[in-house]
Amino acid sequence: MSDNKLRDYFNHEKERFIGEWKKFLSFPSISTDSSYAEACGECANWLADHLLKLGFQCEVLQTKGYPVVFAERKGVVERPSVLFYGHYDVQPPDPLELWRSAPFEPEIRNGRMYARGAQDNKGQVFYFIKAVEALLAHNIELPTIKMLIEGEEESGSEGITAELPGWSERVTADILMVCDTGMIDASVPTITMGLRGMAGCEVRVHGPSYDLHSGVFGGIVANPLHEVARIAASLHDESGKVAVPGFYDGVEVPSMDLSKRVSEAPIDIERLQETVGVPFVGGEKGFGVLERRGLRPTLEINGIGGGYQGAGGKTVIPSSGFMKISMRLVKGQDPQRVLSLLESFIVGSVSEGCRVEVIEKNAGGEALLLSVDSDILKTASRVILDEFNVEPALLWEGASIPIIPLLEQVSGAAPLLIGFGLEEDAIHAPNESFSIKQFEDGFRYVTALLQRL
Amino acid sequence: MSDNKLRDYFNHEKERFIGEWKKFLSFPSISTDSSYAEACGECANWLADHLLKLGFQCEVLQTKGYPVVFAERKGVVERPSVLFYGHYDVQPPDPLELWRSAPFEPEIRNGRMYARGAQDNKGQVFYFIKAVEALLAHNIELPTIKMLIEGEEESGSEGITAELPGWSERVTADILMVCDTGMIDASVPTITMGLRGMAGCEVRVHGPSYDLHSGVFGGIVANPLHEVARIAASLHDESGKVAVPGFYDGVEVPSMDLSKRVSEAPIDIERLQETVGVPFVGGEKGFGVLERRGLRPTLEINGIGGGYQGAGGKTVIPSSGFMKISMRLVKGQDPQRVLSLLESFIVGSVSEGCRVEVIEKNAGGEALLLSVDSDILKTASRVILDEFNVEPALLWEGASIPIIPLLEQVSGAAPLLIGFGLEEDAIHAPNESFSIKQFEDGFRYVTALLQRL
Repeated sequence: MSDNKLRDYFNHEKERFIGEWKKFLSFPSISTDSSYAEACGECANWLADHLLKLGFQCEVLQTKGYPVVFAERKGVVERPSVLFYGHYDVQPPDPLELWRSAPFEPEIRNGRMYARGAQDNKGQVFYFIKAVEALLAHNIELPTIKMLIEGEEESGSEGITAELPGWSERVTADILMVCDTGMIDASVPTITMGLRGMAGCEVRVHGPSYDLHSGVFGGIVANPLHEVARIAASLHDESGKVAVPGFYDGVEVPSMDLSKRVSEAPIDIERLQETVGVPFVGGEKGFGVLERRGLRPTLEINGIGGGYQGAGGKTVIPSSGFMKISMRLVKGQDPQRVLSLLESFIVGSVSEGCRVEVIEKNAGGEALLLSVDSDILKTASRVILDEFNVEPALLWEGASIPIIPLLEQVSGAAPLLIGFGLEEDAIHAPNESFSIKQFEDGFRYVTALLQRL
Repeated sequence: MSDNKLRDYFNHEKERFIGEWKKFLSFPSISTDSSYAEACGECANWLADHLLKLGFQCEVLQTKGYPVVFAERKGVVERPSVLFYGHYDVQPPDPLELWRSAPFEPEIRNGRMYARGAQDNKGQVFYFIKAVEALLAHNIELPTIKMLIEGEEESGSEGITAELPGWSERVTADILMVCDTGMIDASVPTITMGLRGMAGCEVRVHGPSYDLHSGVFGGIVANPLHEVARIAASLHDESGKVAVPGFYDGVEVPSMDLSKRVSEAPIDIERLQETVGVPFVGGEKGFGVLERRGLRPTLEINGIGGGYQGAGGKTVIPSSGFMKISMRLVKGQDPQRVLSLLESFIVGSVSEGCRVEVIEKNAGGEALLLSVDSDILKTASRVILDEFNVEPALLWEGASIPIIPLLEQVSGAAPLLIGFGLEEDAIHAPNESFSIKQFEDGFRYVTALLQRL
């Protein structure tokens, strides 16, 4: 670390940092499931209180969904102001039985914090906060820093999306910092150049009024599970393309230059395949792995269910079945339009004897694609090179942060997406974790950048 | 009732009968789920003890699965001996949340007994037992009566199937009585002329080693749920036929006469469609409703699952998915062969990036198709006409009692399938029930038949 007094501060305060971080992680702030509404509110209040104590002015802004924590600390006016965006909500912890320790009872094992949200995004939000704290503790002059921490990133950001245009004065800034992304390797800090957009829904297929005996009614009643399967299978064609008519409207085939840059990200695909245990043979034929992930849209079934779920068998024709669908979108696709196309396709194709409904519709947000020639990219690259002695990698990610395109527009700020996540963190999965080393690297990056701006 | 003293006995003893029946129903003897093994054993022991007290000689015969209760009472040697077959095991009660009262805490409401197994098959076994008790109480001369009550009818009858050839001396009889079938209408006792055979399995599709983030891996990893859906959808063609190659080998198109008899069963299809809430548009095109059910095989998905099952959404590509399949077979289909064809079809078609396994394979039993010209059919028809003042209906059912064809062969007895179930009993479904009226009708039928044989 170039800055010994900040490194010393980190080491000296580490146990306290971990204790506070654990507290932050202990709130089951699952935004996708309304039974955790109270925990979301409590988590927002705790966070606002924490920032208040650091010297920020704080507001807990109400939305139609979960509250947004807004915090501001005025700084040197000549320096470019920073708006930091993050989220305090987390994914559900299911399947619970696969967790080694309870998802909301954080535990350190082998230098890693294990908990739902340990990385995504509470861990990454928290190193930003602790970096600011360290700089303030050493009376280092800072630019104006604003923080906007929402509670619905994992469920479509509907509340903040509706309110954001009215908050333009609050959020106006020069740089939009986001630490909700990953690294290609533990030793290579990575700048995310693109994110996919997002839309999703749940499809329910209804058949008989109640579960029927499959002997008495097998072959005479249309089985809703057959219809769920038929609809699910109809969503892709044999080449792996999404078969919903109009789905690709507006999607441009990437330029040679962009394809080349995307494909050349120094990612060890072999190793990643070994980590996840399968070859990367999914998706559209005709595009490379990194192109398919970074530049092409996808439609994935995230859950399917219906009928007997227990051990052994049960000979029923169930009264209903369902599937949960999410789509990752690219530049040129409007989430609302794509969602409507999907709904029309499904509703229009349903077989006689079944009834279908499309619910939980969520047009999350558009895709983001950043310029490779911006000033902020140059500054950040320089900071990383100086601090970590390595050129940052540029990465076009497949994941989404639905609010970023709108936030860019309303704040007028230039997005800078640098995060310290790794595949082994298992975000969205059981046993999510974040190493103290990654946490400290994030802390180092933030302290270095905020001093340089 | 033609026999007043037996009617009086029923009414006088009714409360005791109900109490004993409730006890029988209180055992959660779910044979499809091994966690209920103890309850199955306890239920068998209770039943044997009950029959012992009625004057039967009893054995609890062990098998590789659950025990079989065998009971015998020697009677008048000149009269045709009876072998009664039934089962004490029941279907799982899922989904539990739809039950108005607990499935294994029997409750009488509006003249109906509510419990898992209230009808199928504990209720029907129990009116047989109580009918024998009533006849014995009045010192009425009876033929030799043997009872064979197994504990794996709902899970494929594997234990009894393996042992039965060694029990031929025990089970030898003239008439094979079974009360595990239904009536076309509450006022029309019904003789079942055919049952479909049975085979089933579970298919598991495995993908990545753990649940993956669908943004990071969507479009590059093959999603196991897409594969589950693709396989499930491939099992039928557009005409509703089962698409597994060779599935229909050996199946004869029914003769004109049989088709006519099957189709002419006086079933109110309109009313039945109203009861279950859907039109009967499932299955193979080109056959009538009753033909499809009684004379054509079917393949049904009884359960499908994988990925996120909770409220809202969760953006994962899950590591696996599954489906549970059962098939109802007809004369000419060998369950073991059909199961092998299905397995080969599924295993042979699996997509790159996924691995499939076929487990819980169960070649339950062959179909049964009885002659319309047998002596026992004539006797039973006469008994029903005399006792209920109505001609019995003849019905070719779609359900299965897997062991019957083998039992017919080993015992040398002529099958007679008369039961008092109704669609409203909701067997295999939540809130299964059986009315006291149906129970009493069953009791009347058994007392009348056993006196006439």
